[in-house]
Amino acid sequence: MTSLAGGRPRVVFAQFGHGRMGKVHARNVAHHPRARLKYLVDPLADPLQAAEEYGAEVVDENRVFADPEVAAIIVASPSKTHAALVERAAHSGKAIFCEKPIDVDATRVRAVLRTVAQMGVKLFLTFNRRFDPSFRALHDRLRADEIGKPQIVLLTSRDPYPPPIEIIKISGGLFRDMMIHDFDVARWLLDEEPVELYAAGSCLNDPRVAEYGSLDTAVVTLRTATGAICVINNANNATYGYDQRVEVHGERGMLQISNRLPDSVVSSNGDGVAHTPPRHFYIERYADAYRIELDEFIAMLLDGKTLSPTGEDGLRALVLADCANESHLTRRPVAVPQS
Amino acid sequence: MTSLAGGRPRVVFAQFGHGRMGKVHARNVAHHPRARLKYLVDPLADPLQAAEEYGAEVVDENRVFADPEVAAIIVASPSKTHAALVERAAHSGKAIFCEKPIDVDATRVRAVLRTVAQMGVKLFLTFNRRFDPSFRALHDRLRADEIGKPQIVLLTSRDPYPPPIEIIKISGGLFRDMMIHDFDVARWLLDEEPVELYAAGSCLNDPRVAEYGSLDTAVVTLRTATGAICVINNANNATYGYDQRVEVHGERGMLQISNRLPDSVVSSNGDGVAHTPPRHFYIERYADAYRIELDEFIAMLLDGKTLSPTGEDGLRALVLADCANESHLTRRPVAVPQS
Amino acid sequence: MTSLAGGRPRVVFAQFGHGRMGKVHARNVAHHPRARLKYLVDPLADPLQAAEEYGAEVVDENRVFADPEVAAIIVASPSKTHAALVERAAHSGKAIFCEKPIDVDATRVRAVLRTVAQMGVKLFLTFNRRFDPSFRALHDRLRADEIGKPQIVLLTSRDPYPPPIEIIKISGGLFRDMMIHDFDVARWLLDEEPVELYAAGSCLNDPRVAEYGSLDTAVVTLRTATGAICVINNANNATYGYDQRVEVHGERGMLQISNRLPDSVVSSNGDGVAHTPPRHFYIERYADAYRIELDEFIAMLLDGKTLSPTGEDGLRALVLADCANESHLTRRPVAVPQS
Amino acid sequence: MTSLAGGRPRVVFAQFGHGRMGKVHARNVAHHPRARLKYLVDPLADPLQAAEEYGAEVVDENRVFADPEVAAIIVASPSKTHAALVERAAHSGKAIFCEKPIDVDATRVRAVLRTVAQMGVKLFLTFNRRFDPSFRALHDRLRADEIGKPQIVLLTSRDPYPPPIEIIKISGGLFRDMMIHDFDVARWLLDEEPVELYAAGSCLNDPRVAEYGSLDTAVVTLRTATGAICVINNANNATYGYDQRVEVHGERGMLQISNRLPDSVVSSNGDGVAHTPPRHFYIERYADAYRIELDEFIAMLLDGKTLSPTGEDGLRALVLADCANESHLTRRPVAVPQS
Repeated sequence: MTSLAGGRPRVVFAQFGHGRMGKVHARNVAHHPRARLKYLVDPLADPLQAAEEYGAEVVDENRVFADPEVAAIIVASPSKTHAALVERAAHSGKAIFCEKPIDVDATRVRAVLRTVAQMGVKLFLTFNRRFDPSFRALHDRLRADEIGKPQIVLLTSRDPYPPPIEIIKISGGLFRDMMIHDFDVARWLLDEEPVELYAAGSCLNDPRVAEYGSLDTAVVTLRTATGAICVINNANNATYGYDQRVEVHGERGMLQISNRLPDSVVSSNGDGVAHTPPRHFYIERYADAYRIELDEFIAMLLDGKTLSPTGEDGLRALVLADCANESHLTRRPVAVPQS
Repeated sequence: MTSLAGGRPRVVFAQFGHGRMGKVHARNVAHHPRARLKYLVDPLADPLQAAEEYGAEVVDENRVFADPEVAAIIVASPSKTHAALVERAAHSGKAIFCEKPIDVDATRVRAVLRTVAQMGVKLFLTFNRRFDPSFRALHDRLRADEIGKPQIVLLTSRDPYPPPIEIIKISGGLFRDMMIHDFDVARWLLDEEPVELYAAGSCLNDPRVAEYGSLDTAVVTLRTATGAICVINNANNATYGYDQRVEVHGERGMLQISNRLPDSVVSSNGDGVAHTPPRHFYIERYADAYRIELDEFIAMLLDGKTLSPTGEDGLRALVLADCANESHLTRRPVAVPQS
Repeated sequence: MTSLAGGRPRVVFAQFGHGRMGKVHARNVAHHPRARLKYLVDPLADPLQAAEEYGAEVVDENRVFADPEVAAIIVASPSKTHAALVERAAHSGKAIFCEKPIDVDATRVRAVLRTVAQMGVKLFLTFNRRFDPSFRALHDRLRADEIGKPQIVLLTSRDPYPPPIEIIKISGGLFRDMMIHDFDVARWLLDEEPVELYAAGSCLNDPRVAEYGSLDTAVVTLRTATGAICVINNANNATYGYDQRVEVHGERGMLQISNRLPDSVVSSNGDGVAHTPPRHFYIERYADAYRIELDEFIAMLLDGKTLSPTGEDGLRALVLADCANESHLTRRPVAVPQS
Repeated sequence: MTSLAGGRPRVVFAQFGHGRMGKVHARNVAHHPRARLKYLVDPLADPLQAAEEYGAEVVDENRVFADPEVAAIIVASPSKTHAALVERAAHSGKAIFCEKPIDVDATRVRAVLRTVAQMGVKLFLTFNRRFDPSFRALHDRLRADEIGKPQIVLLTSRDPYPPPIEIIKISGGLFRDMMIHDFDVARWLLDEEPVELYAAGSCLNDPRVAEYGSLDTAVVTLRTATGAICVINNANNATYGYDQRVEVHGERGMLQISNRLPDSVVSSNGDGVAHTPPRHFYIERYADAYRIELDEFIAMLLDGKTLSPTGEDGLRALVLADCANESHLTRRPVAVPQS
C-alpha cells in the first residue's frame, strides 16, 4: 500500500481532476515528504508539467485502478463523476480523499456509502474548514469546555462573487453547493444533531440565479434536541472579500473567529483607520487547511490515526441541505431525519 | 408651555418614576440648560434629594396634571402604569416622553394611541438605541447609500444577567420586554416593514424562566417584501458584559457596530492580548443616548423639529413581539399584520 | 469656604478666562452638584450668556479677590497671566485650579510655588491625562504590579494640526507647550524621576515654526536611575486626528492605551476594513478627564482627599522641557537637575 | 550554473549549517520546484535524514567547492565561519545566500565585500523582514507615496526570551546581533541614510548579560539629513511572544504593522476580550519571509532579477550597530560615517 523511498514509507496517490482545487492538492501531495503522486487523471492535464512539477504521469482511469501500488485516490474531478469514482476505488481497495460532494442526491450517496462500508476502505470527505487552525482552535477550546455548552452558534460565510451561471445550473443550489460547508461546521461545533431547520432565502442580485432555482442570500436556523440554536447566513456578493466567521455563545462566555487578513498593515488618515481586506477567496484563506487535511489523511493511512469527516458526515450535511431546500420551498420549518 | 429662566425658554417637566432609568432621566433634565424638572412623582422618592439634586418637588399625580406650567411629562414609572399616564397626559395637553412599553397588550396600545392622536399631543417612545452615536452613525451611513440596500441584518443583544424572576413574571416575556428594542432597530435599519417572522427560542439556563412562559435564548428571523433578511439573537447570560452589536450586509459592502469598551487599555502577556470587557449594562452603555434623546425631545418642543420613534413605532415593535410569541408557540412562521 | 445650597455644601468658584478650555470648565462647574460658579472674569465674556448658562456674574478681578465667599479659582486665562493670578489667589487664601503652565520660566514658577507654600493654599495643576479613564486604568494596573516594573515606556502624542503661528511665537516652544503633558505622564507612569534626557527635533512642515525657534516633530528619550527608558514622540500634523497612545513594557507583560473612537462603526468594502478616525482633538478626547479632575478637586476641598498633580509636578515637567530644549540646541544628552 | 531536471532549469545548492535556520532553509530548497539541494555541510547532520528529506548528500566543504555543478551556497553555519565561507565561495564563482552577519567586525566585512566584488559573484544577505508580506506591503505603500515622506518611524522588536548566555558571549552584543535587523529595516523604510545616532541601553533582567558587555533593553534614535527621526526599541523578555511592529508617521497619514497571530480566535468572558498571543518566535513569524527570500534569490539567478539586501546593506547595518555601541559607551550621540 505504500512505496519505500529512501527507507521511509510513502503513500502512493493517484489524483482525478486538475482544476483549481486539483492543482492545490497535486502540489501538496508532490511536496509531502510521506507521499508520492504517481498518476494524474484529467483530459486537460499537461503531461510535461505533471512530470516536472509533481513527478506524476498523466494516465487514464483504468491505469490507476489496475495498479496495485496506488494506495489512495484523490477525487477532485467534476462533481458528477465523484460517486462512480468512489465506488470504483472502493472495489479496488483504495483509500479515498474526496472533494465534496460525493453526489448531490442523498439516495445515491447512501448507496455509495454502503459500497464503501462493504469494501472496508477509508473514505475521507474534505470539509476543509475543520482543518483550518482557527476553526480547529475554536473547536478544541469548545470541547475543552472553556465556555460551557454552546447555546447560540452564528456562522457567516460569504463569497466575494457568485459562481459562474453554468455552475449554478448544475450545482444543486446554494444549500447543497455552498452552505453544505456550514452545515458540517454546525454539526461539528454543536456536537449534537440538528432536529429542526428553517430556511429563509432570497435572490437579490442576479435574476438568472432564481431562474435556475437557486438563491444568492440565505439564512438557516437549526435547533438541536437540547435547545441550542445555530444560525447560518450566506451571501455571494461580499465586496470586501471572502468572509468566514464563527461565533459561539456558551454558558460561560463567547468564542469567535474573525477573518484572516493577508497582511497586518493598518493605515490611518482622515478617512479612518483601515486594515487590508480579508484573504480573497478559499484558495488563499484555506491554504493551511488543505495542507493539514492531506497530512492527517496520510497519518490515518500510515500511522493508523482516526480521521473525520467521513462519508457519513458528508451525507448528514447533504440531508440538512435537502431540508433547507424543502423549508425554503414550503416556507415552513422541517424536521431533520435522524437516520 | 415653557418657563423663561434668564430670558431663555425652558421646557418644564414632571417625571413619574424614580427607579434606575428614572434617576438617569431626572439628572439629565436637571442638568439640561433648556429644561427644568419641576415635579417628581414617586412614592419612594426622597424630597430632600429631589430638591437638592434636581431642584424638583415631590408631589402626587394630581398636582402635575393640575399645573398648566408643566409642558411635558416623563413616564418612567412601572410598566403597568404607563397607558393610563399617557392617556391622562394627552387629555391634559402635555407632551409625553415615555419609557417602553406603553403597554404589553397591543389592543390597549391602539386605544391609547387613538387618544393621543385625538388630543394632538406629542408622544415620544424611548427606543434609546436610535440615539446612540454608533447606531445613529451606522443608520445615517446606510441611508446615505454607502453600501446599497441592506440584504442581511444581524442584531446581537445579550444582557449580562437575567431580570429578577419577579420581573419575568409580569414583563410579557423576552420578546415583548427585551427583543422589542431589536424589533425597533430592525425596522429602523431595514427602512421597510417585515412581512414574515420565525422565532426559535429556548430556556437553557434557569427552569423557572420557562415556568413563567418566558425564554432566555431566542433567535428571530424577519423577512421583508423585497427579500431582505434580518436575524436577531438574544441571550441574558453574557458573562463578558452587555453585548450590543449590529451587522448590515448590503449590495456593496458591510457596516458593523462593535461593542464599546469602558477604557482602551490592552494587556499582553502569555495568556494573550486582552481588551477590557464591554460596558457593563444599559445605564453605562447608553448614557450618551439617554442625554441625546432628551435633547432631541426638547428640540422638538422648542424648535419644532420632528422626532421619532413615536407611539406608532412602539406599536409596530409590539406587534412583531406578539408575532414572535405566536411563532414560538406554534413553531411556524407567522405573517406580520401590516396595519 | 463653601456655600450651602439646599442644605448641601458647595464650593463657590470664580473663573478667569472663557476661551476653549474656559468654556469646558465653566460648564462643568455650573453642572456640578457640589459646585457653583459665582464669577467669570474675561473681558470678552457675555454677561447674559454667563448668567443664563452658568448662573455666573461677569466681574473684574478685584471683585473676585474681595469676595470671601469665593473658595476656589479656576485659572484658564492666557498663559502669561497665570503666575500673577496664582500668587494673588494664594495671598487671598483661595484654592487654585490652574491650567498649565504656571509660567514658562522655571525661576518664576519656583517663586510662585514658594508663595503658594507660604500661604498654605491648595494648588492643583490640570495635567488632564492623569484623569482620563484609560490613562488612569493603565496607571492603576501598573501600580498594582500587573506587569512588574516598567522597562520601556513609549508615549505618542500627535495633534491633528499645529497651533496658530501667533501662539507658537509665545508658547515657549513645543517642549514647554505640548510635550510637557507627556513629561508629566512619563513621571507618573515611571514612578521614578528621569535623570538624563536626549531630544531630537525637526521642523518638517512649516518653516515659520523654525523661525520662531520651535519644532513640529520631536522625539525625546528619558532614562531613570534604575535604567528604565521612556521615549516620547510628538508631531502636529496627524491627519487621522488626535493621537494619544501609551505603551508600557514591563518585566512580565505589556499594557497599552489605544486611541478612543467617536463611534464603533466598522466599514468593510473592497478598500479594506475601516474604523472611524480617533476623536478629533483634546476637547472631545478628554471630555471625561475634564469632568473628573474637577470632581476630584472638589472632593479635595470638601472631603479632604489628597490630589495631584500639584504645582511641584508642574515645575518638574517644565524642568524636563527646559532640558529638552537644551539637548535639542546642544545636540547632547542633558543631566536632569534633581531638585 | 544550473541543472536541468525534467527539462526545467534548477539552481543546485550546497548548504553550510543545519541548525534552526539551516533546517528551515534546507527544507525550503528541497521543496522548491526550481532548486535542488545537492550537499549539506554540517558535522552534526544525519546523512540518512538529509537524503530522505532533502535528497542531499552530507559532505565536507572541499567537495562543495570542487563541484562545478553547485551554483549557489547557503551560509547558515555558526557566525564566525561566515566570512571565510563567503570568500571561498566568491573565489569559486558561486552565488551566496548568507545569513547575517558576514562578520561582526566591519573591517573584516569590508575586506570580504572587496573579494566578492572582484570575483563578481552575487551576495545576498538574508535580512528576512524585507520579505515578510506585511513589511513589504508597508514598504511598497510608502514608496508609492501613500502617506508622503516618513517623518517619525517607530520600530519595536522584542524577543520572547534572551539567547543562551553562551551566544551572548560571542554574538557581538545586542546591537550587532539583534538590533541589526532593525537598522536594516530603518534604512529600507526611510530610504535615506541615518547621519546621527543616539543609544540608550540597560541591563535589567539578567546581570550576567552585563558582565559580557551586552544589554537586554535598548532604545536607539536615528536622524537623517532631512530631519526624519527613527526610534528603535529592543527587549528580550516579551512574555507575550515575539513582538514585531512598525509605525511610520508621514506627512499625510500613518502606516503600521501589527503583530501576526497564529489563529484568529477571540475569547470573551468576565476577564475581557482576548486574542491569542502573537506567533511565538522568528521561525513561525517569518516562515513566509524565508520562503519568499529564497524564491527571489532563485529568480535573481535564473531570471536575472535584481535583489537586495546585498553585502553592502549588511555592512551599513553593522556600521550603525557599531555607532550604537559607541554611543552607549560614551553616552553621546555619534555621527554615522557615510562611506
